[in-house]
Amino acid sequence: MNDFNIIAEEGKARRGVLQTLHGKINTPAFMPVGTAGTVKGIFTDDLIKTGSEILLGNTYHLMLRPGSSEVKKFGGLHKFMNWDKPILTDSGGYQVFSLSKLRQISEEGVNFKSHIDGKNIFLSPETSMDIQTNLNSDIVMTFDECTPFPAEYQEAKSSMEMSMRWAERCHKYFYNINKNKLFGIVQGSTYEDLRKNSCEILTNLDFDGYAVGGLAVGEPQDQMFEVLDYTVPALPTEKPHYLMGVGKPDDIIGSVSRGIDMFDCVLPTRSGRNGQAFTKNGPINIRNSKFKKLDEPIDKNSTNPICRDYSAGYIHHLFNAKEMLGGMLLSLHNIYFYQDLMRDIRNAIENKTFKDFTEEFLVNYKS
Amino acid sequence: MNDFNIIAEEGKARRGVLQTLHGKINTPAFMPVGTAGTVKGIFTDDLIKTGSEILLGNTYHLMLRPGSSEVKKFGGLHKFMNWDKPILTDSGGYQVFSLSKLRQISEEGVNFKSHIDGKNIFLSPETSMDIQTNLNSDIVMTFDECTPFPAEYQEAKSSMEMSMRWAERCHKYFYNINKNKLFGIVQGSTYEDLRKNSCEILTNLDFDGYAVGGLAVGEPQDQMFEVLDYTVPALPTEKPHYLMGVGKPDDIIGSVSRGIDMFDCVLPTRSGRNGQAFTKNGPINIRNSKFKKLDEPIDKNSTNPICRDYSAGYIHHLFNAKEMLGGMLLSLHNIYFYQDLMRDIRNAIENKTFKDFTEEFLVNYKS
Repeated sequence: MNDFNIIAEEGKARRGVLQTLHGKINTPAFMPVGTAGTVKGIFTDDLIKTGSEILLGNTYHLMLRPGSSEVKKFGGLHKFMNWDKPILTDSGGYQVFSLSKLRQISEEGVNFKSHIDGKNIFLSPETSMDIQTNLNSDIVMTFDECTPFPAEYQEAKSSMEMSMRWAERCHKYFYNINKNKLFGIVQGSTYEDLRKNSCEILTNLDFDGYAVGGLAVGEPQDQMFEVLDYTVPALPTEKPHYLMGVGKPDDIIGSVSRGIDMFDCVLPTRSGRNGQAFTKNGPINIRNSKFKKLDEPIDKNSTNPICRDYSAGYIHHLFNAKEMLGGMLLSLHNIYFYQDLMRDIRNAIENKTFKDFTEEFLVNYKS
Repeated sequence: MNDFNIIAEEGKARRGVLQTLHGKINTPAFMPVGTAGTVKGIFTDDLIKTGSEILLGNTYHLMLRPGSSEVKKFGGLHKFMNWDKPILTDSGGYQVFSLSKLRQISEEGVNFKSHIDGKNIFLSPETSMDIQTNLNSDIVMTFDECTPFPAEYQEAKSSMEMSMRWAERCHKYFYNINKNKLFGIVQGSTYEDLRKNSCEILTNLDFDGYAVGGLAVGEPQDQMFEVLDYTVPALPTEKPHYLMGVGKPDDIIGSVSRGIDMFDCVLPTRSGRNGQAFTKNGPINIRNSKFKKLDEPIDKNSTNPICRDYSAGYIHHLFNAKEMLGGMLLSLHNIYFYQDLMRDIRNAIENKTFKDFTEEFLVNYKS
């Protein structure tokens, strides 16, 4: 069953609505990242006010602490963290490869040591499905191997092919235990034939949605766009397309124009905690002394509550005094910025003005 | 002009309303502490929802960073920090004596080095009035010397007498430059005759309110109550009585019963950041492993939004994972607890049930 409806299109850009058991998601959508059961420094009530309709939870972090069985006992991740809208969980794969120690990869899965307490843990396609089912995720991601970047052709090919075998195992296991959605993840590094082969394998399996993985790993933007240029057209048009871990505002706009519907990234919250604020003219660093005496909002073009109620000078002071409210305000400001951007993108596609919107945005935005 | 109206009394306990240019304060009142222009980890919108009607700003912290002239350029402390309700500022004296280095005290004032950058700063009764005027504080405190505890009689006497001469200088200077309120501070350590002498001097000067200073500095509760027993009756009954830096819930209840109307303390926010939550049965430490699996609120007797929306187990997880949301939630919970306590106290005095309320509260509350 396809719960994704495309209600407007302009070029390859799509304006859609994805239905889940916890409500609908207007796409193109940005998902704030709630690593360990919390979008860092933001109350869920405030997150709703930003227009966020879905957030991402990290399987790896939650399986280690407090444990997915524990979360299940609390009624699942939604109840645990007081968020009753949709949740997408990643598969744990990316963090196993980026955070954990002493990994042993086999066809069966990955043995690794927890980065928290060194405990031995085994993660496989099947256990990842079990964990994400315990979390009661609305959108479950297949468990895949994170191909290093850059990768030689043979390395990328072997890695993609194992991920596809794992995707098949996920598919086979998931639909017997879970009524939510499962998304497959395209791999294949920067090789067109591998990406297309991966798309074909996943499409034949038939998932509820398709993610492009293995990007946002350090490659330049034009290389990322090049991969999207040949990958997205090889995916079923009627299903949602999710670009994992992306990205900067201009990455998002360029990816929407290439047919991507969903995004997640830690950038707005992580940079907010570090004093970076997004504006329509590009990011600013609030610690810069030029903001010390500025009795104006961070972004005069914004009407979000942070810009309405607080001056740049005050937030500069909070960072200068190492007050946690500074990171709280900028994290929230940045999520507002991202969700306002997504709303503008959606409106522009509906009004067939997305091309003009893109040009105007990129003229003003200095990344 | 007296803007303080006592609308109910029970024994020495008073239920009043204090009018300021930024609105009214229902007493007995608890003032959250907004040290450096922020109540740590709490949005001002959320602070209002707790029932907080006034907060305390620290002259010492704000004069050093960002500087009181800077705050004035932002329209005063209310506008700077996005809080349009009343603000009381302390005089800076306490922090000069507890935080700064290389103090030189003379009749004229105090020379000290900033604990932030070592800069030489001079603070006197007159400069403290200027700074608090720049901040646009609704209730300004006189500049006094913080008498060490314990203090020998002669030391306490000399210190109190200098504070009284400084209070006179504050009084003389303040009313020429400021239309807000000035409170005098009673000193005299634990010596009845010194306290009474201090009350008499301040009463003759005639302030808008009177604070009891030099308590909550490490003395046992019964000694604090003993001082209040002979000090509060020596103050004008028609003016508000403020006990500085107090305290624990049972300190507050015992002090209200001795005629105190206003309180401030960092305890709810500081202990919240450290994982301590107040409940009607006493404080709990959320890090305790007994809360790990508890799918119930911190305080089953409370209806505040934190207890309504979050389990003890979730907040335990947040502290375990070092997530800043943990400190945010418990700080807010504790401010709710304090403001609920103050509301219960006010209702009890209005209903002449304060004595019963006190007995019942203290039976359940294990401090």
